[in-house]
Amino acid sequence: MLPPTEQLFPSSVLRNFCVEVFRHFGVPPQDSETAADVLSLADLRGIDSHGVARLHTYFEMLTMKRINPTPTIRITREHKSVCTVDGDNGLGLVVGPMANEIAMDKATQFGSGWVSVCNTNHYGIASYYPLQALKRDMIGWSMTTSTKLVAPLWGAERMLGTNPISIAFPGLKNLPIVIDLATSAVAYGKIEIAKRKNQTVPKGWIVSQQGEMTTDPDDMINGGALLPLGSERELGGHKGYALAAMVDILSAVLSGANWGPFAPPFALRQEIPDRSVGKGIGHFFGAMEIEGFMDVNEFKKRIDDWIEVFRNTKPAKGTGGVLIPGDPEHNEESIRTKAGIPLLPAVIADLKDISKHTGIPFTV
Amino acid sequence: MLPPTEQLFPSSVLRNFCVEVFRHFGVPPQDSETAADVLSLADLRGIDSHGVARLHTYFEMLTMKRINPTPTIRITREHKSVCTVDGDNGLGLVVGPMANEIAMDKATQFGSGWVSVCNTNHYGIASYYPLQALKRDMIGWSMTTSTKLVAPLWGAERMLGTNPISIAFPGLKNLPIVIDLATSAVAYGKIEIAKRKNQTVPKGWIVSQQGEMTTDPDDMINGGALLPLGSERELGGHKGYALAAMVDILSAVLSGANWGPFAPPFALRQEIPDRSVGKGIGHFFGAMEIEGFMDVNEFKKRIDDWIEVFRNTKPAKGTGGVLIPGDPEHNEESIRTKAGIPLLPAVIADLKDISKHTGIPFTV
Repeated sequence: MLPPTEQLFPSSVLRNFCVEVFRHFGVPPQDSETAADVLSLADLRGIDSHGVARLHTYFEMLTMKRINPTPTIRITREHKSVCTVDGDNGLGLVVGPMANEIAMDKATQFGSGWVSVCNTNHYGIASYYPLQALKRDMIGWSMTTSTKLVAPLWGAERMLGTNPISIAFPGLKNLPIVIDLATSAVAYGKIEIAKRKNQTVPKGWIVSQQGEMTTDPDDMINGGALLPLGSERELGGHKGYALAAMVDILSAVLSGANWGPFAPPFALRQEIPDRSVGKGIGHFFGAMEIEGFMDVNEFKKRIDDWIEVFRNTKPAKGTGGVLIPGDPEHNEESIRTKAGIPLLPAVIADLKDISKHTGIPFTV
Repeated sequence: MLPPTEQLFPSSVLRNFCVEVFRHFGVPPQDSETAADVLSLADLRGIDSHGVARLHTYFEMLTMKRINPTPTIRITREHKSVCTVDGDNGLGLVVGPMANEIAMDKATQFGSGWVSVCNTNHYGIASYYPLQALKRDMIGWSMTTSTKLVAPLWGAERMLGTNPISIAFPGLKNLPIVIDLATSAVAYGKIEIAKRKNQTVPKGWIVSQQGEMTTDPDDMINGGALLPLGSERELGGHKGYALAAMVDILSAVLSGANWGPFAPPFALRQEIPDRSVGKGIGHFFGAMEIEGFMDVNEFKKRIDDWIEVFRNTKPAKGTGGVLIPGDPEHNEESIRTKAGIPLLPAVIADLKDISKHTGIPFTV
């Protein structure tokens, strides 16, 4: 059921509004379409935090000229299947898709392609990229750094972003397996929601600015940090930290971007790091041609079998049973494609504010 | 301090004993040396469960002719930087290093190399492989499937192995960052230790055969399962499950091996799956030439900087502060290289048993 405060908008209306907003700032037509596609896919798949709800931040960054609307994206170093790309401080929603295309083109030519990207900005949902690779019968990977929020295990300060990893595998009759996970225990949004509702959060999500486990969201918001996946030493918090470090190094150390705590902020209101160790934030993309390993249809049939066997796992008592990674998002996509995208009043107000400043009409 | 029951052995003595045991079963001289190197590195780095303590299992599998001592390891499908390798049911300690060499040779030729391996067996410690890649100024990855022990989130049966992921990054003045993590919350060995000591285990490690969280090790041992990294939904158990699934698919679905619950057992006493969906277990190796992305020395300096910044993270109250992935193993290696490898009486008894059956002397 739709909460009474939410309002439904056709996906195409929101997408077109995004296109016009990007064009307003001089983003070239094709790039504006691509950037709007990335945001639109997030809304369709139910990842509300990464869709049109973020348009106001992009709008602010473009208004303040903190992002280059017409970047010259180029390969700065290359050896056959691998390369480094400089995004020229463009929108991550434009640099990301282009770098991902480079990875896929390399995979066509060399069996696989691997691209580390510097001088870029927030690139939307991580799974957009492997989903593109599926269209070319490839296994795609994407990772990105982001503004610091996470403490390494046994640390008492924010040093890493929520650094997601995404990869997808195609089925023949089944929808693809789509893995898209932040390497933190939870998203920052969940801490904000708890604060707004005046609730505590579960043990294992956050630490205070002394690095102590706490359940009070304010302790995290006021100088504390999120915990990595695994939360504490006993449950494997060192593993989540190591995964976040892997994403950080592949995306930002290897490309020449700002790694770890030095990643520049996504939004204007966030603190600017006291040191620069490179250019912009970093992404990492990979693409592997399935045909290079196995007949594509045989692989897809094996994935179908995998999906069916795992779906039929004996369910744990009191649960609905095992899901396949990507199930919740596929489900949301089939509902929202028909019903539209539910937006909260605050998001609608943001879009109206953009409309007021740009003169682009926002109506349904 | 060494527990009074443990006895120290020079690493070279244990390594040479392993070489002779492999040779005894007809494993070619060079392959025997390689296999012994993999076990020896585990012992040196303090990963006791994967070193000479496992020799008795390899001994049994070779005695029963369940493993082929003289495999013809070959590429069955290939496109430049990617390929599939059939290990011909050889020792994973031989097939793994050879497939990893193929990945590195491809990286020299094409910038990167990616190898999915079927028809293989247990390959030792996952970090052996990326550590080899460091010698060639490459970033190496390794993953492998293993006998089922882990339940997917909301499942009540064992469906996945502890499926590790390893990757390493070289420093210039600093020892490398070495990431090597099982995608389960903990290793099975910890459940066995708790049982032996008649202790409970922390909530979040295991489920019973009804899929309910439990702290009694017997509930897991008698038909229950380990939980994936993240443990429960609230702390991100779906993420650990997704990572284990990724390893399973890249290693076993893509190569034509037995995936998920169908992975054949490592040891003779383990249950044989009721269905076969391919050949042996699966590994996945990757190697990327650092030079293809960035000047190698510049990268190593950036890694040094990363290590120093993260080591200087403000420490959490009551902890020793942040470690760099690989620190505990580097530390152990420097101690054990001089002092020797501590072995438990049960392990020494196993080695003496091998000595008795093979006639190879085991003495210090």
